[in-house]
Amino acid sequence: MSPSLLPLAVSLGDPSGIGPEVVAKCWDSRHALGLPPFVAVGDPRSLSEVWNGPIAVVSDPREAEGAFERGLPLLAVVAAEASVAGQPSTAGAHCSLDSLELAVGLARSGSCSGVVTGPVSKHQLYSIGFAHPGQTEFVAERCGISPGNVAMMLAGPSLRTVPVTTHLPLREVADRLSSALIEARGRVTLRGLQRNFGIAEPTLAVAGFNPHAGENGALGREEIEVIMPAIEALRAEGWDVVGPMPADTMFHTSARARYDAALCMYHDQALIPLKALHFEEGVNMTLGLPIVRTAPDHGTAFDIAGEDRADPRAMAAAIRVAAQCAATRAAQG
Amino acid sequence: MSPSLLPLAVSLGDPSGIGPEVVAKCWDSRHALGLPPFVAVGDPRSLSEVWNGPIAVVSDPREAEGAFERGLPLLAVVAAEASVAGQPSTAGAHCSLDSLELAVGLARSGSCSGVVTGPVSKHQLYSIGFAHPGQTEFVAERCGISPGNVAMMLAGPSLRTVPVTTHLPLREVADRLSSALIEARGRVTLRGLQRNFGIAEPTLAVAGFNPHAGENGALGREEIEVIMPAIEALRAEGWDVVGPMPADTMFHTSARARYDAALCMYHDQALIPLKALHFEEGVNMTLGLPIVRTAPDHGTAFDIAGEDRADPRAMAAAIRVAAQCAATRAAQG
Repeated sequence: MSPSLLPLAVSLGDPSGIGPEVVAKCWDSRHALGLPPFVAVGDPRSLSEVWNGPIAVVSDPREAEGAFERGLPLLAVVAAEASVAGQPSTAGAHCSLDSLELAVGLARSGSCSGVVTGPVSKHQLYSIGFAHPGQTEFVAERCGISPGNVAMMLAGPSLRTVPVTTHLPLREVADRLSSALIEARGRVTLRGLQRNFGIAEPTLAVAGFNPHAGENGALGREEIEVIMPAIEALRAEGWDVVGPMPADTMFHTSARARYDAALCMYHDQALIPLKALHFEEGVNMTLGLPIVRTAPDHGTAFDIAGEDRADPRAMAAAIRVAAQCAATRAAQG
Repeated sequence: MSPSLLPLAVSLGDPSGIGPEVVAKCWDSRHALGLPPFVAVGDPRSLSEVWNGPIAVVSDPREAEGAFERGLPLLAVVAAEASVAGQPSTAGAHCSLDSLELAVGLARSGSCSGVVTGPVSKHQLYSIGFAHPGQTEFVAERCGISPGNVAMMLAGPSLRTVPVTTHLPLREVADRLSSALIEARGRVTLRGLQRNFGIAEPTLAVAGFNPHAGENGALGREEIEVIMPAIEALRAEGWDVVGPMPADTMFHTSARARYDAALCMYHDQALIPLKALHFEEGVNMTLGLPIVRTAPDHGTAFDIAGEDRADPRAMAAAIRVAAQCAATRAAQG
């Protein structure tokens, strides 16, 4: 079996959230969506509570491909108590963490071609002692990578963005930005475009921070003092980097066609255009890891869990992008 | 003649910029674009330098409708020297200011149904002693309105946004935001939606400032301390106001369908989604004036002036939106 045919490990996330439902719906529509074989990781009861389809419990990911037409392949992680959709619990939090741990381990050990992580509740995880800010930092730690050396990419069909800073009050961003941080995130992004997307000579567009990218200093000096030195450092390494670009004019159709990813200075600068253009198909991808890791760009949505209303398109996109990236990496060796 | 049939006054802007070209192209395509009669205001030489079509010089806007099929109706404002496309000059700056003054005067006096302003060069205007930050403040002053009581709306086919702050370094925005300012801009926006777009009970969506709209204070307190009091003050007046909304999830298709305009806290928050979605059709509209005033959302583009490369769609949208708003206002009396 070639490495690219290994299944993806898909953790179901919090068993009371919409994770089980969207993964099951992806299996239902696997032909229409063109999804490759994957193996779900989580509690079978969280699936059967919200879904009538067949589950094919397996004990080894290698069984997933053969089982995929019979039912949704599942590596069972059984919670201490059965979950109830929409009602998060301590047992469910433990189950989501154990499922994540197993799924990441399968990818790290080479038993799966990558990991797709279903949505968890940070609030629930914190309540059981989880000490990482989120799943991304947990995955990085398990892979032996410093969280400072990974980057979050939001990927849609016509746009990829990477925020340099993420969950910070906006008034703190200006002081948190540094040339070293921008340079590091830019380098991870460029290498990630090569490694995951097979783009030999990627072009990175770096957004400005201020309106009109500061208008030569008249509307702020971060572009001159902080962003430009990072761009020059990356160019000195031979990378193709453009910017700082005025953020408002870099996301329309013809502008997007000129670069492979946009490096953005703050959360909303990266997420506003991505979600305005690709709300249902946004994939969250972690760059800088030895493994492929993607996630749908939505949360547990406890408020609609169990109502058969969850949209599986983001999970399907996360599975599809992970499979493409795994195949690209396998081809590179 | 009913008031709605009065022509719009369209100033050509800087005679060395792309303003004359895009106005001429609008006349060329007036049937295909469904544009109503308008009268251009500016130097006829700036048109004939870049365009071979017929010009119908008129001395009164009332002649415009009758002349519209013969040629592009023009109220001539002759510069001290003929302009050269792509080469801004002092004479051109004076001409652009005189054209603006005349066009605004025609709208104020009721001889035209509104004013559409072509792109000017602020740099050129400042060099001849122009003391306003831009055309918007000039128009407001001529209408006897304080610049603090007008608001800039960016309008596209499926989204309208209004920035509370505009050309400020981003690190200064947090301290510049106040409940009073947000409330004032919100009120101007809501009244503008009634007056110009005929929406009797408009819904205003107010964006948060921080990622995830601050996540109940965990990612910043501006939503709680500054934005929410403004929303409550507007609601107390009976307005339908929602928010503060996470800025990244308020601009996708189904989210946009739930409000009539989005009130944004800073320049790029308003302009990134508008231009990502509607780059070629963005109209800049000034709310809070006794007259209708729109402008295409682009600049003089001196670098491509005279090369027949300028895209007239934004100017066409500015003319179309101005005509619709003028008709709406006329119907309200």
